[in-house]
Amino acid sequence: MIAAARIQGPVRVVGAGLLGTSIGLGLTKLGVQVTLEDSSPANLKLAIDYGAGVRASEGDNPALIVVCVPPDVTAAVVARELEAFSNAVVTDVASVKAQVLAELKTLGADLSRYVGSHPMAGRERGGALSGRADLFVGRPWVISANSLNAGPSVALVEDLAIDLGSAPLKVSASEHDRAVALVSHVPQLVSSLLAARLVEADAADVSLAGQGLRDTTRIAASDPKLWLQILTANSTEVAPVLKALEADLHSLVESLENIDQAGSLATVSRALEAGNRGVERIPGKHGTKAATYAQVVVMIADKPGELGRLFNEVGEIGVNIEELKLEHSPSAPVGLVELYVLPSVEQKLITDLEERGWKIAG
Amino acid sequence: MIAAARIQGPVRVVGAGLLGTSIGLGLTKLGVQVTLEDSSPANLKLAIDYGAGVRASEGDNPALIVVCVPPDVTAAVVARELEAFSNAVVTDVASVKAQVLAELKTLGADLSRYVGSHPMAGRERGGALSGRADLFVGRPWVISANSLNAGPSVALVEDLAIDLGSAPLKVSASEHDRAVALVSHVPQLVSSLLAARLVEADAADVSLAGQGLRDTTRIAASDPKLWLQILTANSTEVAPVLKALEADLHSLVESLENIDQAGSLATVSRALEAGNRGVERIPGKHGTKAATYAQVVVMIADKPGELGRLFNEVGEIGVNIEELKLEHSPSAPVGLVELYVLPSVEQKLITDLEERGWKIAG
Repeated sequence: MIAAARIQGPVRVVGAGLLGTSIGLGLTKLGVQVTLEDSSPANLKLAIDYGAGVRASEGDNPALIVVCVPPDVTAAVVARELEAFSNAVVTDVASVKAQVLAELKTLGADLSRYVGSHPMAGRERGGALSGRADLFVGRPWVISANSLNAGPSVALVEDLAIDLGSAPLKVSASEHDRAVALVSHVPQLVSSLLAARLVEADAADVSLAGQGLRDTTRIAASDPKLWLQILTANSTEVAPVLKALEADLHSLVESLENIDQAGSLATVSRALEAGNRGVERIPGKHGTKAATYAQVVVMIADKPGELGRLFNEVGEIGVNIEELKLEHSPSAPVGLVELYVLPSVEQKLITDLEERGWKIAG
Repeated sequence: MIAAARIQGPVRVVGAGLLGTSIGLGLTKLGVQVTLEDSSPANLKLAIDYGAGVRASEGDNPALIVVCVPPDVTAAVVARELEAFSNAVVTDVASVKAQVLAELKTLGADLSRYVGSHPMAGRERGGALSGRADLFVGRPWVISANSLNAGPSVALVEDLAIDLGSAPLKVSASEHDRAVALVSHVPQLVSSLLAARLVEADAADVSLAGQGLRDTTRIAASDPKLWLQILTANSTEVAPVLKALEADLHSLVESLENIDQAGSLATVSRALEAGNRGVERIPGKHGTKAATYAQVVVMIADKPGELGRLFNEVGEIGVNIEELKLEHSPSAPVGLVELYVLPSVEQKLITDLEERGWKIAG
């Protein structure tokens, strides 16, 4: 079978969890031959039944091997695969890159055929059954080549990313680890610390929680076992960022404890303003700087079909929804749908929806 | 005009910002007579033009006065209103309650006619033009009665909340301030501190930001001037929560700096697990414990009408969407719509959508 893909295969996937299964599903859909391996026979059978590939067998001759095992065993498995398949390029998907590379050096692995990578995609739930063929669509896929890699090896891993709908980004292992410490690992820990404050709190106090608390603590629900491995492997990059945050936090606590002292208000104010400036640096949709969308809020009854009726009419009006949010209504049988649209079409959307009988806020 | 509302009015609203204008709009829609006052003539004119009420005038005799001015001047304005209108009940909407009450005591105000309150609603944008009649629909509205209040005064403020679609919750001033420190003020500061780490970071590092960073830093975009007042007024409740978080953070930093030392892994692991337990305590939609909804992900083209077509068909299928999220697709002309539904209808939704030609993830 000729694959409708850049990758010619066969591709061997080692580790049939969320990422391995998703890669298998995506490549299989493209007609690429995928062989699967997992240390757990039950897990392996599940992924095969799920359609992620066929069972690996003696005599397989993969062109590319993708190691999708937990971070703490990634280097050992990569080294074993490089040894067992002397013609294959081996990549991995671990969320930390420098430590894997260092361990491979220690193990004396053939680094010329190892190209580290990290698809920036995931879900809060893991496991083969959470796998989806389109998990990587539209996400960045970091490719961390090393100095011994030849061009074609790197291109093969880039082709894997492109075939799965990702945007390959060349970033060195150390740059990658520094970046994810900042944009992923520190936010994870800060979210956990914030949520931890709720453990001993009065239920009545927690019941006043709004969207701000929900958003800031959502990722605190992530898997502690996986995150312990990630944080351990990247502790040298995470610690300094977290320490700088601790210093800021310390002055904030001191200022709040002595709010009438000279300088206290300025410290609190500076912290809030720095937060404003920081959040402005986060890129928005389509990789561009966050656009300021206009918000239009529509009230709908909380029953089947209402969203359909609304969005169908928005489509008829011809306006594209850039972002949307369905608001919680803790005690009312109505929903508030927040539509975010380009400012240039805001007025048309409001006028046309009102003409059609929708209740717009304001 | 006889009002289709519990409140008989007239209601005097002092301060025509986001909250005052929204209260005026909501009551006016119900046929309640609203008079408006604002220290800024331009602001007052805007709110009147916007339909939030009529200009206050000599000889007004309000039954209820709602003070909607910034926290730092709330007590002074409440005291003035109590003095000027000796038959009226006066409430306020400030996000902190104990300090306002203490200041009123110092000012020798008639506390029997002052019933503090705090509608738990808002938007990141302020001002009269952001006002909406339904801003309070489905939100809790804290009523902090004091020991001198008579039943009818408290009932009047509860009626205001109910008329505007809110759920009134009786919570004392000190309990309120302790609760909002935990669920609102500390999350605000932590979000600001996290976002502040991005200010000096490499743009390339920030470009790897995903949904986790976006969610944890969203509220860091809030107005520093307003938050400085809130945090100043509630510093005695905020400081201890933040200090406890600082202690947790400090052990985390030490553990990450000495990751190979005995006990370090346990400390990091405990922090992550405490985060899991904390986030489980946050109530979900409709005030119940967060239900575990099943997630169904649908791919759609990023163009007008696609969401309409999708939700229209979901309505035809007869499934209610409990939550939804439109995912960012930084480099692809497709959108991923995450639908959250009751687990009992997940399979039907997937089967029916696929029959209708929709591309479901997996």
